[in-house]
Amino acid sequence: MEINYPNGKKYERKLLPKNEAVKKTKNESYGNRGMTLEEYLNETNQYYRDRKIAVVHKKPTPVQIVQVDYPKRSAAVIKEAYFKIASTTDYNGVYKGKYIDFEAKETKSPASFPLKNFHQHQISHMKEVMDQGGICFVILMFTKYDHIYFLSAQHLLIFWDRMVNGGRKSITKEEIEQNGHFIPLGFQPRIDYIKILDALNLC
Amino acid sequence: MEINYPNGKKYERKLLPKNEAVKKTKNESYGNRGMTLEEYLNETNQYYRDRKIAVVHKKPTPVQIVQVDYPKRSAAVIKEAYFKIASTTDYNGVYKGKYIDFEAKETKSPASFPLKNFHQHQISHMKEVMDQGGICFVILMFTKYDHIYFLSAQHLLIFWDRMVNGGRKSITKEEIEQNGHFIPLGFQPRIDYIKILDALNLC
Repeated sequence: MEINYPNGKKYERKLLPKNEAVKKTKNESYGNRGMTLEEYLNETNQYYRDRKIAVVHKKPTPVQIVQVDYPKRSAAVIKEAYFKIASTTDYNGVYKGKYIDFEAKETKSPASFPLKNFHQHQISHMKEVMDQGGICFVILMFTKYDHIYFLSAQHLLIFWDRMVNGGRKSITKEEIEQNGHFIPLGFQPRIDYIKILDALNLC
Repeated sequence: MEINYPNGKKYERKLLPKNEAVKKTKNESYGNRGMTLEEYLNETNQYYRDRKIAVVHKKPTPVQIVQVDYPKRSAAVIKEAYFKIASTTDYNGVYKGKYIDFEAKETKSPASFPLKNFHQHQISHMKEVMDQGGICFVILMFTKYDHIYFLSAQHLLIFWDRMVNGGRKSITKEEIEQNGHFIPLGFQPRIDYIKILDALNLC
């Protein structure tokens, strides 16, 4: 069975996190065992579910299926399919009855977070969720330092609109520090974003 | 380009709804233009989103990707992948700040709804959502009559537990009529499940 390894495209890290992770040999900080942000969040969500703190899942990667084979006496095989751009954010779920919704992104950039990590329809989705009274935010990770921040969608939209109006195409790390909330990388759970929701009295 | 048509397996209808739909030649009732339950719900959710009534999406079909080709100067092609069993329900979103979560299933059976349409992990997920204060339900369609019912997860679990304890493996249509809520198939929106949530004062 042939496996193709990632060649640098954006979604591959998400699809093959373990293979990607193997390449990391950093040994910088507590908790960094070569995991991706997605793996950290999967563990975090599992922790929350196991302890009945919250029920949050990552949505499956959207795929456009073109051709499926149905071999006799074995499972259907998808023989041709393409990655689709997601129309929503990746994560959603329920905490104390309230709807929570977020997107998680990482950057290798040391000093600013490029807004090209988000799509217009994700921004539109965030606005819709906020209009409906849902809790919406992003989790941003600077992989160079393993620095992770919680930034409300409300704040993200301010920086997004600045870009749309001709301003800079990224958010500086300083701006994120001022407007967001630092989440220390922990062990159980890895990324305790629920603690931030509690501190902000959002739920 | 070769397209394989469904051969009777469960997920195919969901994957190729239009091809399936073409086969339908019924002309029984108002609104039945050969659409599947999934198509009705997609239209309904679009209607709700357009009018800022609620933000609900169907989750993508979960797929295990095994092999991806990266042709030069064109999009990545998934060459080998398999359908995975979903670990949650198919639909979730937000209505008036509250988390709503549901599964939609149809049956050709005229007099009862087979419980094999649900998986144990979906049932577990529904319990988790209810424990967390989310609104959870199922939408059941008897395709023979285009009869659609809203049934709360709480009620579904009663029938599920009856099966687990050795009772019948389905819910009779009469039981669904008594414990659920009939949703008339409409035009705008197609399946007005939000109206039921309002009537039940759930949100």
